[in-house]
Amino acid sequence: MTYPRYTRLTRSLPASVPFVGPEVQERAAEMRFKARLGANENVFGPSPLAVAAMQAAASDVWKYGDSASFDLRHALAARMGVAPANIVVGEGIDGLLGYLVRLLVAPGDAVVTSDGAYPTFNYHVTGYGGALHKLPYRDDHEDPAALIAHAAAVDAKLIYLANPDNPMGSWHRGAALARALDDLPEGCLMIVDEAYVEFAPEGTALSVDAEDPRVIRFRTFSKAYGMAGARVGYAIGAADLIAAFERVRNHFGMNRAAQAGALSALDDADWLARTCARVAAARDEITRIAGENGLVALPSATNFVSVDCGSDGDFARAVLASLTAAGIFVRMPFAAPQDRCIRVSCGTPEELALLKAALPRALADARA
Amino acid sequence: MTYPRYTRLTRSLPASVPFVGPEVQERAAEMRFKARLGANENVFGPSPLAVAAMQAAASDVWKYGDSASFDLRHALAARMGVAPANIVVGEGIDGLLGYLVRLLVAPGDAVVTSDGAYPTFNYHVTGYGGALHKLPYRDDHEDPAALIAHAAAVDAKLIYLANPDNPMGSWHRGAALARALDDLPEGCLMIVDEAYVEFAPEGTALSVDAEDPRVIRFRTFSKAYGMAGARVGYAIGAADLIAAFERVRNHFGMNRAAQAGALSALDDADWLARTCARVAAARDEITRIAGENGLVALPSATNFVSVDCGSDGDFARAVLASLTAAGIFVRMPFAAPQDRCIRVSCGTPEELALLKAALPRALADARA
Repeated sequence: MTYPRYTRLTRSLPASVPFVGPEVQERAAEMRFKARLGANENVFGPSPLAVAAMQAAASDVWKYGDSASFDLRHALAARMGVAPANIVVGEGIDGLLGYLVRLLVAPGDAVVTSDGAYPTFNYHVTGYGGALHKLPYRDDHEDPAALIAHAAAVDAKLIYLANPDNPMGSWHRGAALARALDDLPEGCLMIVDEAYVEFAPEGTALSVDAEDPRVIRFRTFSKAYGMAGARVGYAIGAADLIAAFERVRNHFGMNRAAQAGALSALDDADWLARTCARVAAARDEITRIAGENGLVALPSATNFVSVDCGSDGDFARAVLASLTAAGIFVRMPFAAPQDRCIRVSCGTPEELALLKAALPRALADARA
Repeated sequence: MTYPRYTRLTRSLPASVPFVGPEVQERAAEMRFKARLGANENVFGPSPLAVAAMQAAASDVWKYGDSASFDLRHALAARMGVAPANIVVGEGIDGLLGYLVRLLVAPGDAVVTSDGAYPTFNYHVTGYGGALHKLPYRDDHEDPAALIAHAAAVDAKLIYLANPDNPMGSWHRGAALARALDDLPEGCLMIVDEAYVEFAPEGTALSVDAEDPRVIRFRTFSKAYGMAGARVGYAIGAADLIAAFERVRNHFGMNRAAQAGALSALDDADWLARTCARVAAARDEITRIAGENGLVALPSATNFVSVDCGSDGDFARAVLASLTAAGIFVRMPFAAPQDRCIRVSCGTPEELALLKAALPRALADARA
C-alpha cells in the first residue's frame, strides 16, 4: 500500500520546482556568486524607512501579524484610489496566485498563458490539475488578442498576462490592454501581473474600474520596493472576488515585520524614484555591455534586460553556463525562440563591471 | 453567469475565518486591549540573538529567502537527530498543515480530529473538500485510542492530534502515544502537532524513528521561541513524505529575515529556558487567580491555562465577554463541554494583574 495515501492529483505531480534558487546553485557548485543578477531582485534594496520599520518590529514578532493587514490594505487602497475591499494582501504574488488558481481551477479546467511566461503560475495551475494552453510570444511581446481569442476557443477560466512581461521586459500600453479586454469571453478572468509596473513608462499600468469583474491585477513589494525576501504582494479586483480569497487564504500568514516594512516603504516616494533611476542607469549599462559584444539588448520596462545572444537556445545556454561558472548568476527564458536570450537583472555598477569582464569570454566559450 | 467561475468546491466554502484576530476585534470595538492573552502568543518574546539576526537581515530582504531553507533545515536536523531530508520548513504550522492536507485530502476523504481541536486544521480539511469526523475529548484530553479506532471505522487518511493539546493544555506521554500508533490502520497518517512541546514535561515529545511512515510531527518558532509573527514552522517525517511537499509548497515563500531569526533563536538555549521558566511562573499565577475566584485551573503543559468557569458554555462566554469589554483579550474552547472554560495565555505579571483585577467583576457580570 502506498503510504500515505496521496490524492490522485498530487500523486501525479512532478517534484520539479519552478526555479532553482541562487543559494541552491551555489551549494551545488560549491562556490559563491560574485554578481547576483538572475532573480530580478532589486539590489538597491528597501527604503531606509522600511528597513527601520522592520528593525523596530523585530522584537515585536512575538505577536502574529494583523490577519486583515488593515493598515497596509488601507494605505494601498488610498494610493490606488480604490476601496479597501478591492485589495487583498498576501505572501507575495506567488502566494496570491496560488490562492486564485485554487479558487478557480479544478482538474481539467482550461487556463491560457504565453509559452515561456511565469513558471510559478504554471506550477500552481498544474498543481490544481488545470490544463495549460501556452501561446507563442509575438515579436517578444505577450499577445493579448491571441490569448483572449484562444481563451474563447478553449473555454478558459483564466488568462495570465504580465505587463511588463517577464522574462522579455516588453510591455503594452495600459489603454491598449483595457481595450483588448472588451473581447474577453464571458466567464474568463484575466490576470494582469504588474509586478514590474513601477519601473515602466507612465501609461503602462492597466487603468480599469476596480469593480471590473473581468480582471484582477497583482502587484508586489518584491521588485521596485526592494523587498523580495519580505514576501508582501497584493491583488486589486472586484470586491466579490477579493472577498473570495477569505475562503482559502492563510489568514495569519503574513510576517508582522514585513507588514510594517511595506507600510513604511509606501511612504518613501523619494527612495522609489531613486531606485527607478538607478535601475534605468543599470539597464543602459547592460545595453551598452551587450552592444560592445555585438549583441542586441531588448527594450525593457523592468529591472532586467533580455539580451539577444544572436543564435539559438543552445548557444544562449552555453553563454549562461560560462557566466555561471565565472560567478555571474543570470537566468534565461525557458521557451524558444525567446531562449536565444539571457536575462540580466539590474545590478550595482560593480556587478555590471563583472558582467562586462566575463561576457566576452562567455561568448567565446559558447562559440568554441 | 457567475463571474468568475469558481470551482464547485470553493463556491461551497464558507467565508468564515478560523479565528478573529485581536487587531480585528480592537478595530470592531474601537478600543485597545490592555492585556493580550488570547492567541497563545509568547509575550516574553524572541531571543535577543534572534532579534539581532532579524534586524541585521532587514536590509538584506531585497534577496529572496533561500528556497531550501538549507541552514535552518540542517540546524534543525542536527538538533532533532534526524536527516535534513526528514525536515521541511514552511510558513508556520498553518502553512504546512495546508500543504499536507492538499497532498492527501480529496473531496470526500475522511479525516479524524477531536471536537474543539485546532480550527485552522479543520479549515484546511474543509477547504479541500475533506469529510471531518470529530470525536469528543475524554476528561479534557484528546483520546488517541478513540481517534485511531474511528479512523479505522471511517477509513480515514489523516488523524490530527496536538500534544500538548490546544485549547485544553492537557498532554499525553510521548511513549504512550507511540504505543497507540501500533493500532493505527494502514494507510492512515497521524499528525502530531507539537507546537507547544517545548513547554511540556520531559517525555511529552513523541519519540519515533524519523522514517516511521505512520506519523508526521509539526513544530514551530511561534510559541516557545516567541516568533509567531515571523511565520516559521517545520515538519518532521519520512523522507518520502517530506519530499512530497516539494510538489505543492511555495518554494520562495519564506521571509528571509525570519529564516535568519529562527536559526539564531535555535542557538539561544538560555533564552528558551528562561522563557519556559517565565511561562511556568505565569501558569502558576493564572492558577492562583482562578483559585482565588473559586475556579479550577486545568493542568497545562503549554503557555496557556484553561480555566474551568464551573458552569456551561453560555456562562463562560459571558465571562469572556466581560473580560473582553474590560480590555482583556482571552479566548475559549469552541466545543462543549470544554467550552465551560476560558483559555488564558501566559502574560507578563502586569497583564496578569489586570486579569486578576477584572475577573471578579466578569464572574459577577456572568452570574447576573
